[in-house]
Amino acid sequence: MAVEIERKFLVTSGQWRVGARACNIRQGYLCLGMGATVRIRITDGTAFITVKSKTEGLARAEFEYPIPLPDAEAMLENLCARPLIEKTRYAVEHAGKVWTIDVFEGENDGLVMAEVELNGPEETVDLPDWVGEEVTYDPRYRNSSLVNAPLGNGM
Amino acid sequence: MAVEIERKFLVTSGQWRVGARACNIRQGYLCLGMGATVRIRITDGTAFITVKSKTEGLARAEFEYPIPLPDAEAMLENLCARPLIEKTRYAVEHAGKVWTIDVFEGENDGLVMAEVELNGPEETVDLPDWVGEEVTYDPRYRNSSLVNAPLGNGM
Repeated sequence: MAVEIERKFLVTSGQWRVGARACNIRQGYLCLGMGATVRIRITDGTAFITVKSKTEGLARAEFEYPIPLPDAEAMLENLCARPLIEKTRYAVEHAGKVWTIDVFEGENDGLVMAEVELNGPEETVDLPDWVGEEVTYDPRYRNSSLVNAPLGNGM
Repeated sequence: MAVEIERKFLVTSGQWRVGARACNIRQGYLCLGMGATVRIRITDGTAFITVKSKTEGLARAEFEYPIPLPDAEAMLENLCARPLIEKTRYAVEHAGKVWTIDVFEGENDGLVMAEVELNGPEETVDLPDWVGEEVTYDPRYRNSSLVNAPLGNGM
C-alpha cells in the first residue's frame, strides 16, 4: 500500500508545455460508488489495476498492480463505466518538484489540471505561474467524478 | 481472462463430508453495483483481487491476480463492504468432477452451497445425492448478494 499526498490545480496558460514529456492515458472505473474506487489504466502500452480509498483531501490509500494488457483492454471495453477518461499526461519540473499536467480529451475536452505529489502533508511547494485555482479538495475534479459529470469546455 | 461456467446447488445433507479437503476463505467486495464486482479474497494465507462481470447465468468473465497478503488485509479491513463473507470451502470428487462445497459462517451461517465447474455450457453432470435445488440463475445466492442480503439460518 502507498499513501498518496497530492495537491491539484487548474492550469491557466500553456507556458508549461516547453520541454514537457508526454504519455497517453486511457482509463475507466470498475466501481465508483462505495468506500473505494477501482480503476483500470493503460499508459503507453502498460496496464494497471488500482484501488483507491474514497478519503477526502490530501492523503488517500492506494494499491496498484500491473496486469496483462489484453485483460485491461477487455475490462475497459466491457466492464468499465462510460465515458472512459482519455487524457495526455505531461511531466514538467518546477522548483525541484515534478508536476504532472493532464490535458483531457473526449467528454472532458478543455479541462487541464496540474498535480504535484508531496512528501508529507506539511510540505510547502512553490507554485508555477501557470497554475490557477487549487481543486485538491473539490470532488468534482476527481477523475472518478469526471466519468459521471464530465467538465468539458469548462475552461 | 477466464470464462467461468458453473452450476450452483443448495446442499441438503452432510454425506459429502467424507474425505473432503477444507480451506478457510475470507472475502469482501470493493464494488457490487455496476457492470462488475471486484472481490478481495484470502484463502489459507494467499490473497487475490478478482474482477467478475455481472452477466447473469452460467458464463461470467473473470480476471484474477495475486496480491500481497498485507494489502488484502488492509483492503478487507478498510475498504470492503460489510459484512465480509467468511466460509469454509471443501472439495470433493463425484463421478469424475470436483465439487466445491461452501459452508458459510457469520451472517450467512446455516447456508451450504455446492458448485461444479463445467467445460462448456452443454456439458451434463451427474448430480450427487446431497444436492438439492439448483440456484445457478438465482441472484440471491451470489456471494456478492450475500453481503447486502445475508441468507443465514435460511436452511
